[in-house]
Amino acid sequence: MRSATDGAPSFVFVPGLAAAGDELVIAGEEAHYLRRVVRIRAGERVTASDGEGTLAELTVLDAGSELRAEVGVRRSITRACRLDVWCGAPEGDRADWLVEKLAELGVASLRLVDCERTQWERAAKKSERWERLAVAALRQSRSAYRMFIEAPVPIAALLETPPDFAVSYLADPGGGSFVAHRQAGPRSIGAAVGPSGGFSDEERKSLEASSFVPTRLTESRLRTETAALAIAALVLAAGE
Amino acid sequence: MRSATDGAPSFVFVPGLAAAGDELVIAGEEAHYLRRVVRIRAGERVTASDGEGTLAELTVLDAGSELRAEVGVRRSITRACRLDVWCGAPEGDRADWLVEKLAELGVASLRLVDCERTQWERAAKKSERWERLAVAALRQSRSAYRMFIEAPVPIAALLETPPDFAVSYLADPGGGSFVAHRQAGPRSIGAAVGPSGGFSDEERKSLEASSFVPTRLTESRLRTETAALAIAALVLAAGE
Repeated sequence: MRSATDGAPSFVFVPGLAAAGDELVIAGEEAHYLRRVVRIRAGERVTASDGEGTLAELTVLDAGSELRAEVGVRRSITRACRLDVWCGAPEGDRADWLVEKLAELGVASLRLVDCERTQWERAAKKSERWERLAVAALRQSRSAYRMFIEAPVPIAALLETPPDFAVSYLADPGGGSFVAHRQAGPRSIGAAVGPSGGFSDEERKSLEASSFVPTRLTESRLRTETAALAIAALVLAAGE
Repeated sequence: MRSATDGAPSFVFVPGLAAAGDELVIAGEEAHYLRRVVRIRAGERVTASDGEGTLAELTVLDAGSELRAEVGVRRSITRACRLDVWCGAPEGDRADWLVEKLAELGVASLRLVDCERTQWERAAKKSERWERLAVAALRQSRSAYRMFIEAPVPIAALLETPPDFAVSYLADPGGGSFVAHRQAGPRSIGAAVGPSGGFSDEERKSLEASSFVPTRLTESRLRTETAALAIAALVLAAGE
């Protein structure tokens, strides 16, 4: 088996991966990548991720006008923890790299939240681009999981039904130090990060009432996108 | 006293801050910012950082052709830990945000390292831009400390004299989990992050021989800039 980094087989995103032994057709951007960048040939191997926890080795059968491959052994990958990030809008174009970096770190879902002081604008227009960035990050990190990006909703709407996180953090310069709540088995963790204008006092109170623990990430004041990345790094490292 | 976030006084970088009671002239980019963005007036207050651990309240004396201010009480800020990051070159333009984000998180210095597989190109040309980004991050995070960016050197040259870090980490997908080495008092911590092409086996061995502990940051494979950010978030959160 080749190592997971150097000389590893090319890595593609194939939603709804077929069963072992089945044939599938790789189309769209992934086919373009394999043909033009990798210059794949029949007989070569590719690793595929379905973005929902399954990896499989594919053997390319035909690299001609139709890119056909046979599915080999499938492996289910379990995550040490599932992290969902609720994030207010950062300034300007910073959302692009927010998406890229959270996906690369292995965040399960990024829920865009509209806040009193700052709302997500142009989110519908940018969603296709963000989906592409999330898939590119899956390829880059050779991950079995794809980050889902969920359309903006007001924070009050999210809190109408109590979220079922085992632990949840609220990024807050006035909070306590980060404490990893280690526990056996995969768990669901939530993290809420305020928008560029910050959460309002009322929003902060409603998050705390829903068990989000105010947590200070560093000694310095962080931008939205930096705080989201820092909390993701902390939770996902602790999850191991 | 106004809060550190909302309604806080404007924040500027004034290297070599004068003593309390002294007058100083604010020039260059900081003066431009105070005049054009803040529209500062005589009698108003500004917080200044010298980038080396001192903050002071300034009172503007004259906002005319020369921007003069009087230095008020000076405060020394001690860091819980000092983190120096040795970082290989990321792909493309990703160094810009590497600089911005490490500075925002509160990294003490970013040492650019030239590696066998990837070297820093155009670093001399970009250093002015990076300095500006580091100062902008100091302002953004209202920090007493500025991140220093040190010109590229080969990793072998850095290791010629043993580094005097209390603890040092090597970002490595094959390493152990991150363990915060908590200890009383401010300490010096090092972190080495490979370039886009990764460290060579020899480089990895020489870092390990110099007490850099291979440390896995997340379950996924990370790009250079993402790994640097993740290790900085982990160390600086643990440092508190």
